[in-house]
Amino acid sequence: MTSQDDLFHPVIELPEPTRRARYDRLVGLDDTKLRLRKETALLADPHRLRAWAAAYHDGDVAALTLFEDRAPLFIFGGDVGSGKSALAESFGCDLADFLELPVYLYRLKLATRGSGLVGEMTSLIGDAFTHMHMMGKRVSDSHGARAVQILVVDEADALVQSREAQQMHHEDRAGVDAFLAGIDSLAGARLPVVVVLCTNRLATLDPAIMRRAAATFTFSRPSDEQRYAVLSQALDGLGIRPETVRKVVELTGPNGDQPGYTFSDLTQRLVPAAVFRAFPDRPVTDEDLLDLAEELEPTPVFTERRR
Amino acid sequence: MTSQDDLFHPVIELPEPTRRARYDRLVGLDDTKLRLRKETALLADPHRLRAWAAAYHDGDVAALTLFEDRAPLFIFGGDVGSGKSALAESFGCDLADFLELPVYLYRLKLATRGSGLVGEMTSLIGDAFTHMHMMGKRVSDSHGARAVQILVVDEADALVQSREAQQMHHEDRAGVDAFLAGIDSLAGARLPVVVVLCTNRLATLDPAIMRRAAATFTFSRPSDEQRYAVLSQALDGLGIRPETVRKVVELTGPNGDQPGYTFSDLTQRLVPAAVFRAFPDRPVTDEDLLDLAEELEPTPVFTERRR
Amino acid sequence: MTSQDDLFHPVIELPEPTRRARYDRLVGLDDTKLRLRKETALLADPHRLRAWAAAYHDGDVAALTLFEDRAPLFIFGGDVGSGKSALAESFGCDLADFLELPVYLYRLKLATRGSGLVGEMTSLIGDAFTHMHMMGKRVSDSHGARAVQILVVDEADALVQSREAQQMHHEDRAGVDAFLAGIDSLAGARLPVVVVLCTNRLATLDPAIMRRAAATFTFSRPSDEQRYAVLSQALDGLGIRPETVRKVVELTGPNGDQPGYTFSDLTQRLVPAAVFRAFPDRPVTDEDLLDLAEELEPTPVFTERRR
Amino acid sequence: MTSQDDLFHPVIELPEPTRRARYDRLVGLDDTKLRLRKETALLADPHRLRAWAAAYHDGDVAALTLFEDRAPLFIFGGDVGSGKSALAESFGCDLADFLELPVYLYRLKLATRGSGLVGEMTSLIGDAFTHMHMMGKRVSDSHGARAVQILVVDEADALVQSREAQQMHHEDRAGVDAFLAGIDSLAGARLPVVVVLCTNRLATLDPAIMRRAAATFTFSRPSDEQRYAVLSQALDGLGIRPETVRKVVELTGPNGDQPGYTFSDLTQRLVPAAVFRAFPDRPVTDEDLLDLAEELEPTPVFTERRR
Amino acid sequence: MTSQDDLFHPVIELPEPTRRARYDRLVGLDDTKLRLRKETALLADPHRLRAWAAAYHDGDVAALTLFEDRAPLFIFGGDVGSGKSALAESFGCDLADFLELPVYLYRLKLATRGSGLVGEMTSLIGDAFTHMHMMGKRVSDSHGARAVQILVVDEADALVQSREAQQMHHEDRAGVDAFLAGIDSLAGARLPVVVVLCTNRLATLDPAIMRRAAATFTFSRPSDEQRYAVLSQALDGLGIRPETVRKVVELTGPNGDQPGYTFSDLTQRLVPAAVFRAFPDRPVTDEDLLDLAEELEPTPVFTERRR
Amino acid sequence: MTSQDDLFHPVIELPEPTRRARYDRLVGLDDTKLRLRKETALLADPHRLRAWAAAYHDGDVAALTLFEDRAPLFIFGGDVGSGKSALAESFGCDLADFLELPVYLYRLKLATRGSGLVGEMTSLIGDAFTHMHMMGKRVSDSHGARAVQILVVDEADALVQSREAQQMHHEDRAGVDAFLAGIDSLAGARLPVVVVLCTNRLATLDPAIMRRAAATFTFSRPSDEQRYAVLSQALDGLGIRPETVRKVVELTGPNGDQPGYTFSDLTQRLVPAAVFRAFPDRPVTDEDLLDLAEELEPTPVFTERRR
Repeated sequence: MTSQDDLFHPVIELPEPTRRARYDRLVGLDDTKLRLRKETALLADPHRLRAWAAAYHDGDVAALTLFEDRAPLFIFGGDVGSGKSALAESFGCDLADFLELPVYLYRLKLATRGSGLVGEMTSLIGDAFTHMHMMGKRVSDSHGARAVQILVVDEADALVQSREAQQMHHEDRAGVDAFLAGIDSLAGARLPVVVVLCTNRLATLDPAIMRRAAATFTFSRPSDEQRYAVLSQALDGLGIRPETVRKVVELTGPNGDQPGYTFSDLTQRLVPAAVFRAFPDRPVTDEDLLDLAEELEPTPVFTERRR
Repeated sequence: MTSQDDLFHPVIELPEPTRRARYDRLVGLDDTKLRLRKETALLADPHRLRAWAAAYHDGDVAALTLFEDRAPLFIFGGDVGSGKSALAESFGCDLADFLELPVYLYRLKLATRGSGLVGEMTSLIGDAFTHMHMMGKRVSDSHGARAVQILVVDEADALVQSREAQQMHHEDRAGVDAFLAGIDSLAGARLPVVVVLCTNRLATLDPAIMRRAAATFTFSRPSDEQRYAVLSQALDGLGIRPETVRKVVELTGPNGDQPGYTFSDLTQRLVPAAVFRAFPDRPVTDEDLLDLAEELEPTPVFTERRR
Repeated sequence: MTSQDDLFHPVIELPEPTRRARYDRLVGLDDTKLRLRKETALLADPHRLRAWAAAYHDGDVAALTLFEDRAPLFIFGGDVGSGKSALAESFGCDLADFLELPVYLYRLKLATRGSGLVGEMTSLIGDAFTHMHMMGKRVSDSHGARAVQILVVDEADALVQSREAQQMHHEDRAGVDAFLAGIDSLAGARLPVVVVLCTNRLATLDPAIMRRAAATFTFSRPSDEQRYAVLSQALDGLGIRPETVRKVVELTGPNGDQPGYTFSDLTQRLVPAAVFRAFPDRPVTDEDLLDLAEELEPTPVFTERRR
Repeated sequence: MTSQDDLFHPVIELPEPTRRARYDRLVGLDDTKLRLRKETALLADPHRLRAWAAAYHDGDVAALTLFEDRAPLFIFGGDVGSGKSALAESFGCDLADFLELPVYLYRLKLATRGSGLVGEMTSLIGDAFTHMHMMGKRVSDSHGARAVQILVVDEADALVQSREAQQMHHEDRAGVDAFLAGIDSLAGARLPVVVVLCTNRLATLDPAIMRRAAATFTFSRPSDEQRYAVLSQALDGLGIRPETVRKVVELTGPNGDQPGYTFSDLTQRLVPAAVFRAFPDRPVTDEDLLDLAEELEPTPVFTERRR
Repeated sequence: MTSQDDLFHPVIELPEPTRRARYDRLVGLDDTKLRLRKETALLADPHRLRAWAAAYHDGDVAALTLFEDRAPLFIFGGDVGSGKSALAESFGCDLADFLELPVYLYRLKLATRGSGLVGEMTSLIGDAFTHMHMMGKRVSDSHGARAVQILVVDEADALVQSREAQQMHHEDRAGVDAFLAGIDSLAGARLPVVVVLCTNRLATLDPAIMRRAAATFTFSRPSDEQRYAVLSQALDGLGIRPETVRKVVELTGPNGDQPGYTFSDLTQRLVPAAVFRAFPDRPVTDEDLLDLAEELEPTPVFTERRR
Repeated sequence: MTSQDDLFHPVIELPEPTRRARYDRLVGLDDTKLRLRKETALLADPHRLRAWAAAYHDGDVAALTLFEDRAPLFIFGGDVGSGKSALAESFGCDLADFLELPVYLYRLKLATRGSGLVGEMTSLIGDAFTHMHMMGKRVSDSHGARAVQILVVDEADALVQSREAQQMHHEDRAGVDAFLAGIDSLAGARLPVVVVLCTNRLATLDPAIMRRAAATFTFSRPSDEQRYAVLSQALDGLGIRPETVRKVVELTGPNGDQPGYTFSDLTQRLVPAAVFRAFPDRPVTDEDLLDLAEELEPTPVFTERRR
């Protein structure tokens, strides 16, 4: 079997300060954050659900058995720069705090997508799931889990796009099928393993994948409120006036055909560019920000086209 | 020859409680269930047919010889979430009870679909059928069968789609041909082996495959009655009012362009989401269900498009 | 060179009871049967032709030399379920009786269609023909043949479809070319070897293949008379009334856009389904047949589409 | 280097009775036959050209040097069944008689078209030309040639079709290029080697191939005169009346959209079918021929389509 | 792991006279040059940013942390001949002077784009980034960097074009993904490594690549001023009159549908052609230049077409 | 590294009589011939340029440095039969005379275009350039070159066609890139190596290739004057009247949609055909030529189509 190092990027134990900071910076996603916490908490500690049923419903609740058949799969869809990958890689920090357990973040390596022969993608994906299975068993016993594992598959579209697409190659279809088999093997296995698929081409995901998802979350570019929160935080200490921030929020919003700025347009392009204008000879001014907000163009939307 | 482990997922001996429960949950499929029982029973024990002919038709019935030439192939077609795979993997429980014999469930591994070279799919499929043949011989003698084997090929469309599709690759056509050869080798072999193909793209199956099928069953999303039965069962213990259940049945039915909920939309998405709304602080209420039934969208239909 | 086992399914010596029965069941194909007998008889025993020429034409007939240049190739085209494969694999029984010689049935294995590399199909087809050549020589000497060999290539379209199709891959074209070379090597070789190509896509066969065929036979779904004969035979012993049979013949014929039943629709689907309705509790009735003839749909026609 | 046996079918020394008979049967192709004789004779014995120049033009003729730069390439284009392959493989008989030298017929094996890897076709074609070169050198010295070699490339279109076709694969283009290189290596080499390309898709040949051809001959289905000659010869001894033959000539000619019979339609299908009607019980009659000429359809034209 | 020699062209230590001269010849790109100097200086010596924040903003500037998350990626887009590659390979000279540190120029070898198997491109790109990482670590410690590395990926479009393009092969998508992973591994790694992508098909770059770029610079064909500067410099010593130079500037500008001359059209084609007209017998004259400026056609624009 | 024999056809030392004769026969290409002589002379002996600058411009000429950066690449574009390949392989004779140095003609083998794996074309082209580099170094020192090398890439379009073409395979793009890298490695290397690309699809060459060309020459079918010169030379000694030659010139020119004769149409088809008409029994007459000029069709134009 392929070794862990060939399948995954280095495993990260959460909580961890950088990712916790990212989690905190993702403002305006509270519903999603709460649902993720509940879902993953139940996977790690099924007793909680029974306790709740006992407390509020006499305990004899048929629905409890349904949870044993669910696939621990979450789909994060949405445009580039909408925060979905950042959340996928950081919500484990919150979960670790809530459960008071370590959470291990596994990120599927691209090489898992195979190295050439039809069928190889199939077996590598199989190996990845087998590995998650094995590690999940190691950290769980009849008393529940002593740790939780999150497997993040970023840029997942290449892996699991719809078999409807007639021009899809056999190999790609086999990838979808292997993924389905992997997810099905986790469903009902009562292991503290969660899989998160990130994709910016949600509409091209295979319906059989979509159907298995415990939940699908759609992410968008930041709203006015979100941009305001992000900018206020990022500009702190530069002495920018609040009304300037508000004006920048307005300038960076969607406008006609042009989409709004992404999270990263704000934090990785706009603010740094303002710093570079000033550095090394003078302070950043309000004009720097306003000029750049007019000048820079937001990251283009990733168009989902089907033939 | 490829080993059994490379060809099939772990073989499961039926009856087995989880699958029997699934079989029981598949409400509203009684005709299909009965036909499957009869077909497979005759394959396992041909004396039954002769006994019947003797009892009701003087015994000298030409049609009996036709049964020796039939391919033990059943095709389960229909939309995702319509229960076809669940039935394929669970009807052996019923059969085992009826025949008072063990039933072994073989599920073709995806890897059987080949690992890269043209012709490999052909030989792997050939190996799979050879294996079924060999195992079938082991459990049968002139007195009949001591066990029955069911081979389930899920997501079969990639394997046996129509050669009409001009853009199909040579390799894919070879897969169709290998499958035809495998089925033909079972026809008339008097072995207790049944093959079930599941596909959600029935219209793309090769006519030569269709022609060989002893029977083709088409599955649909659950009807009002089926949804009512499923929901009543799943909500038991939560104290939901019957009229609420009926209202949810209505809300989850097809509506204009929108399809109805699938079996799994009901049991894996709607009911769990209601639980998550309430958990951990309060009981599930009728409003939770009604809200969610309005809010959630059913799994999209897998469109069968031909170019 | 590839071994016989890799090239062909197990060789069958004819006559053999099962296939003779199939031959007999193919009602309404008398012209084809007669022509096949004559053609193959002359190949096996060229003296017969000379004897005829002497008896009816003074013997000095130029046309006799033309027979030495003919390719022993027959093409069986037609829809699925029209009996072409059944005849191809069974007419050797008749031939064996007529010639009082054994007839060996070779069926090209699918694997002969190559396992991945361009050029492999070419060499495997070449090996298959070389093998037929060699075996043909073993059973013949200057006095004529001591046995006849029939090579059946079923589902031949993938192998020899027209090079006109622009999208055909190089490999596929090479297959056509290898087949042409093989056939040409048999033409004039005076060996008791006959090749039968079966295809349900006659219009896509390469013209250069078509041109070499000694004869091309087109098969159709059974006519009213043929369906009547088949049904009468299959229903024998069930006590069905003749007028019911006639009504079923009518119901199973073509109707508007819907094609008629195939041979196998009648024998493998309609009659068995009637039995299953009754089994195990009651006899088959006339109503069973009439209901099913209304209910079942014939196998769809394999459409020959060209881009 | 690839061995001779891998590159060519068994080499045939001409003249040889069967092929001479075929050459003689190709009625109505006298211009082509004469030109081929002259061209190949000069290649084998360049002194003849000088002798002619001395006799008719004082000897000092600049054009003589042009002959040293010509590629010994002839292209035979035309429909299937038009006799082009038959002539390519038989004109060496005439040449051998004319020159009083042996002529060796090489036929390129299909396998030369490569076995899978890009570039292999290139090197195999290269080997084939190298072989022709080497053998040509062996049979020639400063006094001229002691033998002539003819290399026939039948069904050449797959090998040398136009690079204009955008969808042509790299490998196919490499085949064209290798062929060009091979031909260029023969041009001016003063070796008694002639290359004949046969194709039924003349319009798809690469212009760079076309340009190098010393001559291109276009073949057609037989004319009325040709059909009459062929039929008279083939029916000799059957006692068919001349007016019947003429009527058959008429019936087998082109008619509206339907093309005329090919040479092989006449000799391999029409006349044999008439014999089979009569055999073994009665003589062939005029009616047999007339009936069949109405009934049989000519081989369809191989359409040259470009996308 | 692949060795450095397989991944990169020979590494060049900057400053180096030839490239410094090229850098100096790139007139009119001062903004780009300045930004590149600032960006790369901060990567190599993060203390500078803190010093600036302390001097102009009290030091407590939230934006500083954003710099730790930025990807050190610059995209140079624009038409062929616009100077983007020349700048990418030469701006390290300026940086070396500014920082008083050596700068190492790595140029990704084409072979890194893989040699055949799907997945190989992925692993080679991975190796290239791993190598940059490792070398970056060697030259840096907690006090900052002792050298800077620039990785230039020229003609990058084949590597990282948009996954939107439906016809892109799986392998190409894997290349995009591997590149994303490599860039992400550098973001926040605080290593003195800068990556520059050059492409003349900016619009086809993957949005996920675009989003990560610290800055994207678009290059154009030289303006009138730039052409004047280039020509004056290049014609120095030939005694050409200033008004002639101005006339040539005009003649080499865009005109209707025809684009203006590229940098290299001026220096590699126009001026050399003038020399060749005169050499070896006479001096270059003003007329030579004017004639050629009329006669030569500028390099055509590389059209970005999307299907 | 691949050996010289695998990369190139046998190397030819020029001058050599056959090729010198071809060079002389290429009438009407004097400008091209002169430019080629100057360009290649300077590459071989850079002192000549300095001597010229000293003689006519005081020596201090900035443009001299530009010559060090030029790529020694010439592109010969034009229709089949326009003489471009003949010139590419023969102009070295003139150069050898002019420089009084040997000139070595290298012709890239087709096999260099790779044998199957993506990336192989890349490395083979790389090897070819490395080889030219190495050999160039051997024959040059600080005093200049002792020999000149010309690398001819005939039928170059497959190798370096435009990356704009969306359907181009990755492998083909890699070929373009490798070629670019090879040419760039020669630019400024001060080696006596010249590369000539011949293509009849000039418009499909990659702009990045076009831009690097020191000069691009477009070749056409021969003009009236050229045809007259060619014919007069070729017909010398046959006693054809001048007015007949003029009439033939007229008949072989372009006419409406029909293009004019190519060089080779005249010398390899028209004149030989006239000889064959007469040989062996009578002299060639004026009528032979006039008849054939009416009868023969010129080689079709190689259409450059883009999708």
